[in-house]
Amino acid sequence: MKAPLIDNLQYANFSPAIFEQMRQGGVDAVHVTIAYHENFREMVLNLERWNRWFEDHPDLIFKGTSAADLELAQATGRTAIFFGFQNPSPIEDDIGLVEICHQLGIRFMQLTYNNQSLLATGCYEDDDTGLTRMGREVVAEMNRVGMVVDMSHSADRSTLEAIEHSTRPIAITHANPHWWHAALRNKSDEVLKALTGAGGMLGFSVYPHHLAGGPDCTLESFCTMIAEAADRYGAEHLGIGTDLCQDQPDSIVTWMRVGRWTKGIDYGEGSASNAGFPPMPSWFNDNRDFGNIRKGLQNAGLNTADIDGIMGGNWARFYAHSFGPA
Amino acid sequence: MKAPLIDNLQYANFSPAIFEQMRQGGVDAVHVTIAYHENFREMVLNLERWNRWFEDHPDLIFKGTSAADLELAQATGRTAIFFGFQNPSPIEDDIGLVEICHQLGIRFMQLTYNNQSLLATGCYEDDDTGLTRMGREVVAEMNRVGMVVDMSHSADRSTLEAIEHSTRPIAITHANPHWWHAALRNKSDEVLKALTGAGGMLGFSVYPHHLAGGPDCTLESFCTMIAEAADRYGAEHLGIGTDLCQDQPDSIVTWMRVGRWTKGIDYGEGSASNAGFPPMPSWFNDNRDFGNIRKGLQNAGLNTADIDGIMGGNWARFYAHSFGPA
Repeated sequence: MKAPLIDNLQYANFSPAIFEQMRQGGVDAVHVTIAYHENFREMVLNLERWNRWFEDHPDLIFKGTSAADLELAQATGRTAIFFGFQNPSPIEDDIGLVEICHQLGIRFMQLTYNNQSLLATGCYEDDDTGLTRMGREVVAEMNRVGMVVDMSHSADRSTLEAIEHSTRPIAITHANPHWWHAALRNKSDEVLKALTGAGGMLGFSVYPHHLAGGPDCTLESFCTMIAEAADRYGAEHLGIGTDLCQDQPDSIVTWMRVGRWTKGIDYGEGSASNAGFPPMPSWFNDNRDFGNIRKGLQNAGLNTADIDGIMGGNWARFYAHSFGPA
Repeated sequence: MKAPLIDNLQYANFSPAIFEQMRQGGVDAVHVTIAYHENFREMVLNLERWNRWFEDHPDLIFKGTSAADLELAQATGRTAIFFGFQNPSPIEDDIGLVEICHQLGIRFMQLTYNNQSLLATGCYEDDDTGLTRMGREVVAEMNRVGMVVDMSHSADRSTLEAIEHSTRPIAITHANPHWWHAALRNKSDEVLKALTGAGGMLGFSVYPHHLAGGPDCTLESFCTMIAEAADRYGAEHLGIGTDLCQDQPDSIVTWMRVGRWTKGIDYGEGSASNAGFPPMPSWFNDNRDFGNIRKGLQNAGLNTADIDGIMGGNWARFYAHSFGPA
């Protein structure tokens, strides 16, 4: 198999047009978010929508559940779609739903999305109490069935405890280093060292709030940061998780931030004067732009093997070890 | 593969003791009912309970989803458990749940359980209007994904229309011929001819209300009836679906009959003076008793090939053609 191209986080307003762009961009696999605040039944409605897309566009996409689906994607010229949650709301208060969701194809689950959850503390809370009693049980259950713990939106102590408590490597699917851009959602050197030291993966985000300079961030700055991260953490632990929210109306970023947990408004990474989705950097707008990142990594001096790994090979290896039973 | 032993319908109060009896009886596969009146979320709770049993008793049972699991069962000395619904309540009013349920492993679904459903008419209604608008759509969707239409509790016109409308053979998993015992739940010669003529399967029930003579029915009478059915319909369309409700308290048969559709009481096949589960015939009480049926079929003059088929080979062939995409 040639090195696959994998984007390990998107929450686009998916459509046949975007699936076509995945094919035009040669994207072998995408991990898509199918839940932020949905309960189990609502999440299933989102699965039903994906089932319709798989039925209607079998020439473009199919449901991915194992690393072997990356080879199938390449062999058939299609994109494998892997499912994940950005919040544990779909498992409600029921640990038995972890295995049910795995049986339905979910392969990643964040323990928190910004706020305190039943499992851990989100990065916007004032106090981080780490993994809860249920959190420890759910991490063990995710380890057992083969669902990856994702701590992209979690607070530091919770993240470090998840790394420590998990018997399998975990992931931060979409964030950047705090030393490059000091956003609350970006991750401390301590967290990234612990993550990668335990075999975990970091996916670099191109969501503008995570970028140094925001929408004006240059490709050179982004790729120089990746080269530095490769030096610090080892290139083999790095991948891409763009957080692409293509074609979403601003009402969706409000839903992502507010869900049903407040009657008020919360701007998350934005602000009252910048409440909507931010404009994307010029060098990454959709699934046809991964070639820009590859060229940027070449210009930043990374070797081909490392670039192949960062563009998907490392996620592929991680998938192979993560999605089956322990 | 030697001819498998398959019971294509049980709703026992399952327990490790019953799983041990399945092994003692050499039962390779059982189709178990996991929903009568449950909505989707409640049915998922039942799946969770089965997941726990699979996790806790991997030496005895595993989840079956395809005909290949029959070979796995024999190779590993375990019983494959296949899931089915006796009512379409778990798909609620949502055709998208057909594929979701198939992805969760459900392989049989009755279109009705005694009453009118959103899909068809049950055998206890006064008027049978056949497949509804949604019923025709759901049958087509079941055909597409590989979920078997089961009409055991449906009324005649609905059953004939399901046979006609379905592009794949359907099943009556647990009933007997009306010409042998004129119970409302047993099936007319017309229905059984149409069913088997279209490649469908009939599973013979040993639930006493379906037996000539009830609990006093002799093995000889039961097996002579099967021999007659083999003459009428062809032995290759016949199998076993005992409807074993072992170890269930009488409160369960009330739940099966009443669900949440009435505040009153309905006795179904029973009566005010005989409201609970009836006693089983002496020759069939649990999963260790299939040898009695085999001997009875030998004594009734059936040849070994036909007996092997009726005891499981015919269901195995049906599974192989029914559980995958159309």
